Amino acid sequence: MHEGSTPVMDALVEFVLGLETASLPPAVVDAASRSMTDWLGAAIRGAAEPLADSLAAVIDASGGLPQAAVVGRGRRTSALLAALANGAQSHALDFDDTHLPSIVHGAAPVAPVVLALGELQRLPGARVLSAFVAGFEVETRLGRVLGRALADRGWHVTGVLGHFGAAAAAGKLLGLDARRLAQALGIAGTQAAGLEQSFGTMSKPLHPGKAAMNGLLAALLAREGFTGPTAMLDGHAGLGATFLGIEDLGAAVEDLGKRFEILDNSTKFYAACHLTHATIDAARAIRSREAPAPDAVEAVRCRVHPLVLKVAANPHARSGLEAKFSVAYCAATALVRGEAGEAEFSDASIHDGGVRRIMARVTPEADASLGIGAAAIAVHLADGRVLEERVTAARGTPENPLTRDEVEAKFRRLAEVVLAGERVTRLLGALRELPALGDVSDLAELASP
Amino acid sequence: MHEGSTPVMDALVEFVLGLETASLPPAVVDAASRSMTDWLGAAIRGAAEPLADSLAAVIDASGGLPQAAVVGRGRRTSALLAALANGAQSHALDFDDTHLPSIVHGAAPVAPVVLALGELQRLPGARVLSAFVAGFEVETRLGRVLGRALADRGWHVTGVLGHFGAAAAAGKLLGLDARRLAQALGIAGTQAAGLEQSFGTMSKPLHPGKAAMNGLLAALLAREGFTGPTAMLDGHAGLGATFLGIEDLGAAVEDLGKRFEILDNSTKFYAACHLTHATIDAARAIRSREAPAPDAVEAVRCRVHPLVLKVAANPHARSGLEAKFSVAYCAATALVRGEAGEAEFSDASIHDGGVRRIMARVTPEADASLGIGAAAIAVHLADGRVLEERVTAARGTPENPLTRDEVEAKFRRLAEVVLAGERVTRLLGALRELPALGDVSDLAELASP
Repeated sequence: MHEGSTPVMDALVEFVLGLETASLPPAVVDAASRSMTDWLGAAIRGAAEPLADSLAAVIDASGGLPQAAVVGRGRRTSALLAALANGAQSHALDFDDTHLPSIVHGAAPVAPVVLALGELQRLPGARVLSAFVAGFEVETRLGRVLGRALADRGWHVTGVLGHFGAAAAAGKLLGLDARRLAQALGIAGTQAAGLEQSFGTMSKPLHPGKAAMNGLLAALLAREGFTGPTAMLDGHAGLGATFLGIEDLGAAVEDLGKRFEILDNSTKFYAACHLTHATIDAARAIRSREAPAPDAVEAVRCRVHPLVLKVAANPHARSGLEAKFSVAYCAATALVRGEAGEAEFSDASIHDGGVRRIMARVTPEADASLGIGAAAIAVHLADGRVLEERVTAARGTPENPLTRDEVEAKFRRLAEVVLAGERVTRLLGALRELPALGDVSDLAELASP
Repeated sequence: MHEGSTPVMDALVEFVLGLETASLPPAVVDAASRSMTDWLGAAIRGAAEPLADSLAAVIDASGGLPQAAVVGRGRRTSALLAALANGAQSHALDFDDTHLPSIVHGAAPVAPVVLALGELQRLPGARVLSAFVAGFEVETRLGRVLGRALADRGWHVTGVLGHFGAAAAAGKLLGLDARRLAQALGIAGTQAAGLEQSFGTMSKPLHPGKAAMNGLLAALLAREGFTGPTAMLDGHAGLGATFLGIEDLGAAVEDLGKRFEILDNSTKFYAACHLTHATIDAARAIRSREAPAPDAVEAVRCRVHPLVLKVAANPHARSGLEAKFSVAYCAATALVRGEAGEAEFSDASIHDGGVRRIMARVTPEADASLGIGAAAIAVHLADGRVLEERVTAARGTPENPLTRDEVEAKFRRLAEVVLAGERVTRLLGALRELPALGDVSDLAELASP
């Protein structure tokens, strides 16, 4: 054990440094590759959001060596600033993946770091993937223990714990030894921040961007001998104790290296709140059997987990953002259009007459017997028939994962808003071969028009 | 009131935007000019510390437009990175000023921002001073309400609240309107961080550096239309509520613009823990009457506030850092040498035989009748005489402020470790004229060899 560090810190450091893509279970490598793919699509699409313009203006005004691409923007800057911009862009639409047991958007703080350092150091895909998995595991394992309590207290879990994921990934790629990696995790933890109060503003997606930048800064400083508190995790004055009064983080390192959190990752297939996805699945299933004309629908009963009524039952949905938190709107768009992608949540799109007609007839009902990723729907038609469907695990959850084709279709839909189709095709080709890719800077170059 | 903001936010924003050096009481302008002077000396001296080498290496590796000087280093970089380095350097020796009622090192997060923007925009001293006062007041007023509770919970108050001071100062110099300044304070608050667990490592001085950089980033982003939570201060999900469960920050804006916190600022005259300073004063007063030979001292009784025994009664003092928290060492060095500056706390200096002989004869005693900045000392000599002295307010506190000469002597002692004496003299000349200085970039240039 290093001076001042703790058993949990030591275990995580040893795990991070020992992890190699070649020794990982194939399912883990595949999950990491999918997560990186899904993340990159969201980050490229985020380049077209207003927040990316603000960030680009500040980056241009500050300058920096052209080390890493800001994806979708045709601009290179320092690895620190590229990590900031890419992390924020990737979370701009809240369409990136979520590790539900920890409530951490796992890729958003880590992928920007491994992409920037992969480009700067011209690293092979296998090394980038191993650092990605290392960072993902560190933040989500800590999130298993702290995530729910952080969220209950008003912290944005991805913002706070993403610092550790980013520092772990950066430290691994920068070749830190065990002592310096523990220092880096300490330097990262003392920068950890992000308040739920920011939700609904651009500062929410800023959080994973800052986590990426701060974690990378921590590792860069530690490499140069900068010191930090290695007793940052468990213990009487670590992050858990200070933020929450939780001192024992031992559960975070159980089965370390044997069980991988990334296998519990969920990929968003729809552009709405995760809690609406099972209802969308059920409505789409009905539509695929028999697409009802809007005029023919008399009533729609949606049974959902009680939490859905608390979080995602906005009855008004006056904007696209509000529609993402309206299970009635989600059911209606899925029944009428069979889709619930970004296009169906534009401010213009939500006022479609047929969708609005059905939406007004939807009644969400709490059913505590349903799981949080489950839903049941019954569409009552004018001719007296009732079309019913039940979903036990929404599309994109670990129990019902997306196919590689579906991940790629989502990527294409998002990336083609910003990049030419031919470039998107080449990107998908490179991502498909990520574990064998010789130089990750190829990826960064393709992603930067 | 702006949409979503709160009365406390609105009051602070109005105060920050309305503040002008020409309308400030002369005592406030003088206190601000002294604080900037004291801060700059500490920041220049910090350039010779190892942490400055680590930061410089990372900054060199990242690049940035040459907008602002890293003081004492002969290097210019982006305003963001210069603010980071200068903030960290200025707190490296823990020798910068302290606003004791809020436990905020007031200059450390704010001065780096006004210096960097002053240089970048070639601003006159009066504008820089008004922004400095604005930032200082914002962070210390919030600290009046939140500081003690933050410290009790394990937060570094300067790190957390410095974000607001830095953003306020930056927003004022960048010309933000009221709505955007409130956004900037929100973006700053959601980055607020800094754990007491970092004390004893380089990450403690990193905190004001990061606060400066993050606050400046917040204001730069807000200028470009980036949005943040304007209900960041009081209210049910603001920083006070999330960090501490404190929702009512109304006391922070009482007498705003009438009473100035900077008049309660303390300047460190000795390089030790603030709690030892009254004892050092008392011992120096005795020495100025009759300097006792170490062999002639039989016993030294030091009566101090009980908190001193808890925090600053290290009986071992095996390093210079430990000696700063040893009231026995401090009394002994003051009696023998009449000095307690940086030189008297070097690892070599603390092993002086005469000092050690007296130190072994010092008995600190708690006396609850004494104030926290008071002390009484009785030196028992071999010839039977007892030399006594009592101090009610330590040198450098608001009740017993340093003279301008003393502030300048401290500046000279610190800055001459790094800069040539002739340059230090010119710097002091410019600082003396700060309110009338035409272009603050002159100051930055002189401070950068």
